[in-house]
Amino acid sequence: MTAPAVILIDPQLGENIGMCARAMLNCGLTDLRLVRPRDGWPNQKAQDASAGAQDVVDHAQVFQTTEEAVADLTRIYATTGRTRELLEYVLTPRAAAEDMRTATASGLHRTGVLFGGERSGLTNDDVAKADAIIRVPLNPDFRSLNLAQAVLLIGYEWFTAGDQTPSETRDIRDARPATQNEVEIFIERLGRGLDEGSFFRSVEMRPTVMRNIRLMFQRTQLTDQDVRTLHGITESLRRAGPERK
Amino acid sequence: MTAPAVILIDPQLGENIGMCARAMLNCGLTDLRLVRPRDGWPNQKAQDASAGAQDVVDHAQVFQTTEEAVADLTRIYATTGRTRELLEYVLTPRAAAEDMRTATASGLHRTGVLFGGERSGLTNDDVAKADAIIRVPLNPDFRSLNLAQAVLLIGYEWFTAGDQTPSETRDIRDARPATQNEVEIFIERLGRGLDEGSFFRSVEMRPTVMRNIRLMFQRTQLTDQDVRTLHGITESLRRAGPERK
Repeated sequence: MTAPAVILIDPQLGENIGMCARAMLNCGLTDLRLVRPRDGWPNQKAQDASAGAQDVVDHAQVFQTTEEAVADLTRIYATTGRTRELLEYVLTPRAAAEDMRTATASGLHRTGVLFGGERSGLTNDDVAKADAIIRVPLNPDFRSLNLAQAVLLIGYEWFTAGDQTPSETRDIRDARPATQNEVEIFIERLGRGLDEGSFFRSVEMRPTVMRNIRLMFQRTQLTDQDVRTLHGITESLRRAGPERK
Repeated sequence: MTAPAVILIDPQLGENIGMCARAMLNCGLTDLRLVRPRDGWPNQKAQDASAGAQDVVDHAQVFQTTEEAVADLTRIYATTGRTRELLEYVLTPRAAAEDMRTATASGLHRTGVLFGGERSGLTNDDVAKADAIIRVPLNPDFRSLNLAQAVLLIGYEWFTAGDQTPSETRDIRDARPATQNEVEIFIERLGRGLDEGSFFRSVEMRPTVMRNIRLMFQRTQLTDQDVRTLHGITESLRRAGPERK
């Protein structure tokens, strides 16, 4: 799926352009377009700040006007923190990412996102070229993001909208979840040790206390390796004998 | 709701600490903790880079060990891009944000997120102190984020997990959506003008063509102000008379 173009309008510092390129590549975006970069182009500081995203910097296209930069695009989004004197649709980055994915998946659209320069953001004329505004929900008392941070958040939402990573996984390497039988064998063995070590104050309390101990281990979602470790701990503590005073 | 603490372990550059503070405040986080900041503390460069988040920098707490920095917390997350030789739960930032909100809402938990320094990230010993790992889904070929970018993404997910911003809104200022009747009156008036201007090639085609024209305006979700503008455009074009060759 074609990723959206990132269009930086009147960007000032090369460092920021480089950091935008890095944030883009983090999110799988590569089509960088610059409108009137203040310090000219190519720019060594942009190269240096790209930290490995040099390809994105090298392939950046430079334009003199926003019109030229977006000429081939069919669906344009403008990022802005300010409220405008414009009647516009305003999307969260998450909704915009879904919108971009849907538009691109139709095969009809080529999308791009406009970002204003460090100093004054986008002009109303540039915003009026967009099909929708993207406004990032942030602390209302401290909304100002730097350029690369804004690019990162939009790119991140675009990336995660198409990403299949399960929200929760477990790195268990060569281990596998313990079977209920493996856990049971350990709990019984532990119980025998506790009986012999006079852990239980009364016979009547034993079932309740053992149930709580069982729950404590159950909660941790043990692997087969964990259970082997617990057997080893139990054996080792018995072998150690009473602590010396 | 108490926001998670951000714990930077072995951070090196003051600039990066300042940019972390800024990203934190963007997302409503204020509890910054530093473990062994390389260049000492306080740090003027951190102040300078915080760009208005000076309060977060001023209230940062400094510790000599990770243990001390997290002593009061009950639920700890470690951010890491690397796969570890550890058996750990791995959450996406979105799932972790939900988890933090749920844990905090219970009133039982105080949460914090560990971030490793610029050079080598978190040690396995630090990761082992965490209840879960957070791994940001990113371009697998270019995963490396700078410190402030990592803080921003975790903070952003935390913020949006509790944010009520509708995913799509419309800034229509003093305008209101046009009623169907207002649209209808305009379409009829336009139709009369098109009849008088011999727009339709045949009477038979008129209903189909008018339907398509209607859809074009319908799609734009007109406001009352838009409809007034369209009346004005129609009147003005008729007044202008034929284009001179």
